[in-house]
Amino acid sequence: MSASCIFCKIVKGEIPSFKLYESAKTFAFLDIGPTSKGHALVIPKYHGAKLHNIPDEDLVELLPVAKKIAKALEVDTDGPDGIGYNILQNNGRIAHQMVDHLHVHVIPKRVEKEGLIVGWPTYETSTDELKSLQEKILAKMDQ
Amino acid sequence: MSASCIFCKIVKGEIPSFKLYESAKTFAFLDIGPTSKGHALVIPKYHGAKLHNIPDEDLVELLPVAKKIAKALEVDTDGPDGIGYNILQNNGRIAHQMVDHLHVHVIPKRVEKEGLIVGWPTYETSTDELKSLQEKILAKMDQ
Ligand SMILES: [Zn+2]
Ligand SMILES: [Zn+2]
Repeated sequence: MSASCIFCKIVKGEIPSFKLYESAKTFAFLDIGPTSKGHALVIPKYHGAKLHNIPDEDLVELLPVAKKIAKALEVDTDGPDGIGYNILQNNGRIAHQMVDHLHVHVIPKRVEKEGLIVGWPTYETSTDELKSLQEKILAKMDQ
Repeated sequence: MSASCIFCKIVKGEIPSFKLYESAKTFAFLDIGPTSKGHALVIPKYHGAKLHNIPDEDLVELLPVAKKIAKALEVDTDGPDGIGYNILQNNGRIAHQMVDHLHVHVIPKRVEKEGLIVGWPTYETSTDELKSLQEKILAKMDQ
């Protein structure tokens, strides 16, 4: 817990929220500044700013709870078309993180103009660069 | 497994990949059409298109593995500034999903012009709408 963190205060009930779910490790609530109807946040109760700050055991429930909310929002259409939704977790200001307590966004995408707008510039690469990058990453993962 | 699915073929080794990680339930590899250097994908071996199609037990490792990759990519800076990264999982064509086997993107964000560009239109709402939405969602979650 961090005394000054708005999401820790929501978990503790010191700030009211539109709560959707709570377990021993996880809390979920509606985003009050939504980008589409039903935009919700799933957070670990454990206070940490970014993905790499959170212990694995506090991460494991986040996607199952996001799934539960997506179903309750009735955005769980099958097939490529129909209603969609994005699951997004941002780390750092440059990556659009605004509150420094890890949160997973569940963002319904019913029409093009609402919800997450994904921009996806191409990064020019090559087989050689990918191979070299793979080796570097594997070396770091072994540590 | 789906015989025609490109990601199932990657898991089986029928299509080569720049593999980063493999466990009994999870597989990770470099995206060969990256939007930034080190852009990686983490997938369940279980074949399912969207988040709501995947059993919880096949979801739990995805964020811990994404975290492991973020650390190996050395994008795990602390503080709001510095290098960032986005974790993104898209469901449906309208939400920018291109391959119909669930995948979690790990997208480094070192400079503004590379990696995920987040567009975030405001959805106008009210306390009454949020309250009513919360009630509807809770009623569905109880089922
Ligand atoms: Zn906090
Ligand atoms: Zn597949």
